[in-house]
Amino acid sequence: MSNAGRSAAAGRIVSGCPSTMGDDYQLNLTTLIRHAARTHAEQQILYRTAGAWERYTYRDCYERVCRAANALRSLGVSPGDRVGVLDFNSRRYFELYYAIPGLGAILLQLNLRLAPEELGYIVGHSRATFICVDETLLALAEALAPHAPGVKGWIVMTDKAEIRTTLAPLHHHEDLLAAASPNMDWPIIDERSAYSACYTTGTTGRPKGVYYSHRAMYLHSLSLAVRIGLTSRDRVMLISPLFHAQGWGLPQAATLQANKLLLPGRFTTENIAPLVEALIAEGVTVTGAVPTILFAMLHHIETLAVTPELSRLRVLCGGSEPPLSLMKRLRELTGAEVIQAYGATETGPCASLSLPKPSLAERLGPEELWDVRCTQGLPGAGVDIKVLGPDDRELPHDGKSVGEICLRGPFITSSYYDMPESANRFIDGYWRSGDVGSIDADGYINLTDRLKDVIKSGGEWISSIDMENALAGHPAVLEAVVVGIPHPTWQERPLALVVRRPGLAVTQEQLHEHLLGTFGKWQLPDQILFVTSIPKTSVGKLDKKVIRAEYAGLYARGSGA
Amino acid sequence: MSNAGRSAAAGRIVSGCPSTMGDDYQLNLTTLIRHAARTHAEQQILYRTAGAWERYTYRDCYERVCRAANALRSLGVSPGDRVGVLDFNSRRYFELYYAIPGLGAILLQLNLRLAPEELGYIVGHSRATFICVDETLLALAEALAPHAPGVKGWIVMTDKAEIRTTLAPLHHHEDLLAAASPNMDWPIIDERSAYSACYTTGTTGRPKGVYYSHRAMYLHSLSLAVRIGLTSRDRVMLISPLFHAQGWGLPQAATLQANKLLLPGRFTTENIAPLVEALIAEGVTVTGAVPTILFAMLHHIETLAVTPELSRLRVLCGGSEPPLSLMKRLRELTGAEVIQAYGATETGPCASLSLPKPSLAERLGPEELWDVRCTQGLPGAGVDIKVLGPDDRELPHDGKSVGEICLRGPFITSSYYDMPESANRFIDGYWRSGDVGSIDADGYINLTDRLKDVIKSGGEWISSIDMENALAGHPAVLEAVVVGIPHPTWQERPLALVVRRPGLAVTQEQLHEHLLGTFGKWQLPDQILFVTSIPKTSVGKLDKKVIRAEYAGLYARGSGA
Repeated sequence: MSNAGRSAAAGRIVSGCPSTMGDDYQLNLTTLIRHAARTHAEQQILYRTAGAWERYTYRDCYERVCRAANALRSLGVSPGDRVGVLDFNSRRYFELYYAIPGLGAILLQLNLRLAPEELGYIVGHSRATFICVDETLLALAEALAPHAPGVKGWIVMTDKAEIRTTLAPLHHHEDLLAAASPNMDWPIIDERSAYSACYTTGTTGRPKGVYYSHRAMYLHSLSLAVRIGLTSRDRVMLISPLFHAQGWGLPQAATLQANKLLLPGRFTTENIAPLVEALIAEGVTVTGAVPTILFAMLHHIETLAVTPELSRLRVLCGGSEPPLSLMKRLRELTGAEVIQAYGATETGPCASLSLPKPSLAERLGPEELWDVRCTQGLPGAGVDIKVLGPDDRELPHDGKSVGEICLRGPFITSSYYDMPESANRFIDGYWRSGDVGSIDADGYINLTDRLKDVIKSGGEWISSIDMENALAGHPAVLEAVVVGIPHPTWQERPLALVVRRPGLAVTQEQLHEHLLGTFGKWQLPDQILFVTSIPKTSVGKLDKKVIRAEYAGLYARGSGA
Repeated sequence: MSNAGRSAAAGRIVSGCPSTMGDDYQLNLTTLIRHAARTHAEQQILYRTAGAWERYTYRDCYERVCRAANALRSLGVSPGDRVGVLDFNSRRYFELYYAIPGLGAILLQLNLRLAPEELGYIVGHSRATFICVDETLLALAEALAPHAPGVKGWIVMTDKAEIRTTLAPLHHHEDLLAAASPNMDWPIIDERSAYSACYTTGTTGRPKGVYYSHRAMYLHSLSLAVRIGLTSRDRVMLISPLFHAQGWGLPQAATLQANKLLLPGRFTTENIAPLVEALIAEGVTVTGAVPTILFAMLHHIETLAVTPELSRLRVLCGGSEPPLSLMKRLRELTGAEVIQAYGATETGPCASLSLPKPSLAERLGPEELWDVRCTQGLPGAGVDIKVLGPDDRELPHDGKSVGEICLRGPFITSSYYDMPESANRFIDGYWRSGDVGSIDADGYINLTDRLKDVIKSGGEWISSIDMENALAGHPAVLEAVVVGIPHPTWQERPLALVVRRPGLAVTQEQLHEHLLGTFGKWQLPDQILFVTSIPKTSVGKLDKKVIRAEYAGLYARGSGA
């Protein structure tokens, strides 16, 4: 892989006098699980299988990690090879987090929510040779198989002796482990070698591969632990999927601290009770989940006869912004603290956390502190952050100047794997997040929009989200969406689609008048169209991609701005 | 610097697939202070000058760091240059922890307790070109100057406008800062370049140079924070000298978390009150000190009318083992927790900490937990540890097998600077600590002796400390020392010197009989000599070096073992 940005950066590095330290000691993720097994051998790991929680220890876990690595090696898996995994948050998946990369091979995270064709693209692009699949996901694997011709073997993970599948060649994970040695002399892996890979599935273009190095994830584990104050006394439940961006980095950070660990396996929002029960019974102090899951947990807690006391619990919340009402309700009811974690597959993944820093806690009142918790938070040490305006000029951190958030650091990607056409997503070693926002004088990130949803008009930006909120504030408006439409003079101009409330009338002129309260005249939508419904995505979000496509030619002949 | 061990280690490194991450982002210590200043600008730093505490902020501190770096650059300080510092724990010293290495130069720590000749050796060996010296230490600098002919300039740190000194060429630190720019575009420094240097002053041979890399100290900061649970809410007082091994790593870890910081300047055990008062008033939660200082603090606290509540305070205690009575008394009286920190200049410096891990807290009773606190503790993740027997064979971690403790890791030295004859202090990339002990099944280190004080007899080891304790247990023995004396057949054989209690008589035969309770016949001292006093060092320790020299020829003709 050629990487122009990397060489350019290396050229600027100044060398002083060599140190005497063990600077060649490679930061390998295997070190963490080996350390946990050696010095906290008896620490428990709980894992949920079909209906029941079972327990084993870091010692047992590490033995299975060693066996799995030996088994994969016996199948021919070599340094640099990719091994995919299709599984929920099982103990086997957790073990593979160390067994595969411990060989110098790459753990390929496969998102169970993707279509077989898309998974096939990822398996093909990464050139994965083996796929480990949980027995309950055999149907998905069988659908994937025709799209993954490069796969040389399928490893089925099950406790059953016999299974029926069309997958071939087929291997039985537990049989392999039973036959493998429980001892492993781990190779020392170049810390810049890929540890795992995760493909982002944005709304545009093909999935893009982020290949995490051992070094990056080792440093992310330390950084995350330092930022959330994770100590060896914490008890961690891994709710966010192990098939998403590094499981948000919690599996590795928890291993670093040899935390008591809970792996909930397969669950649904409709059946969240076993997770909540274990969370209470085992005294879980750290977890991570998307708002949807947190809502489900909150609703379940509200039905309990005895409200649990969870004041030691910190919940990382990412994926999308946790609503203030959710954060407040959980705090009031249980004492639990929700921490917004901002980041992406590309950022290790936790780039910033919305924790009020000590000086703010002294300076601000309770409601202002909630405002801080609604931001995307403070970046960690070692995360360099820039706000770039429309012309890529760096903007001040004044809380007002709005631009694209760009990030750089030891656990932030500086390219996409084997995708030269994505070079424009990087600038000076910084990753362009596609998120638009500001950074205030205290260092907190405030996102206002996605870059693709910002309307770029005459070298200036107009926030579609702000305008949608303003339109929705008019009494006659039921729903509104604002998108940028190509324009020959201004690059883009805003278009608004509005659904009126039944029985209420409003005109374009009246809405323009309404918008003038918060927007300049030049920012007003050239056209406001009244529609009966607005296109939505499968998860209920406004489908701006479809709207932009449908109205792409609307301003082709120009119009006054 | 050639480093055979380094090349050998590098040869074993396996490369997988390159990652896409920012693996070229260099871990530079400057990142930490810049981050603290940017995101925790208003956090306070307190520093004590002649008698009074003053305050400034990380923003102010960082501005002075930038000015100091620009000032040093204007004097010609370049990457790889060494700049020495003679100072107590002042804000200026703390600023120089970042200003000097930020240029790619090396901060040379100079121990104020050393004789001018010895300091001269260190300055000469490191080829330091500038020395920064606090005004109160001008006499020491003037005594050093004739022994440091390579020094091109002396920078005096004082608030006074005029000073009198024979040092030349002379620069005035504050004048340089006032004239320098407050902005700095830091170079990106190769993370393996030396950040600082500290010379160990063992009882044998010349001081040996440990040159810490940026990478090593960055990782040590993260590791230390993770292990002691240092969060951004902690308040840290830097008591252990900034001129000792990296100030024990606390200055950098505290910067990582932008902790409220207290720099006590010059103080003595006789005048510990200002430290204790500030510790209470500012709610300090973390500090580090040797047992002597802790005793002084405890005694002062015992005189207070109102006993302070310090249950949030954790005290790292190193240098020598904190007595159990001290740990217990501090805990009972104030709630403060003493954590034994084991390490050395060579280990970053914190290699292990005597914290009971969660599983022990569940399994052991209160007295057993105190026993755990009396061990040298658990190594951190990334610290590889081995116990090597007399023949350099690795011994099991069974709590019984006693050998030399050897350490390896990203913040452990793998050589001494420019000292080829010290190669025998390293083995397979591991540093030979010279400490003798065992590691138990839980991972805890238990030291029993210094290697140089162990008697090597016929391929076996005899603990001098155990034998001294056994002798001291005899009612007629006032004091005893045991050393190994060269022997033509057995390599070494034990010799005991004993001071009898006034008016009590005891013979060699009777003491042999007494020792047979705990020692084998072959281990008994060939001779027990009765003396009136035992040579001591200036700090009151048994001076085994002098004793060994005095009796070096005693067994030259051999004797029965």
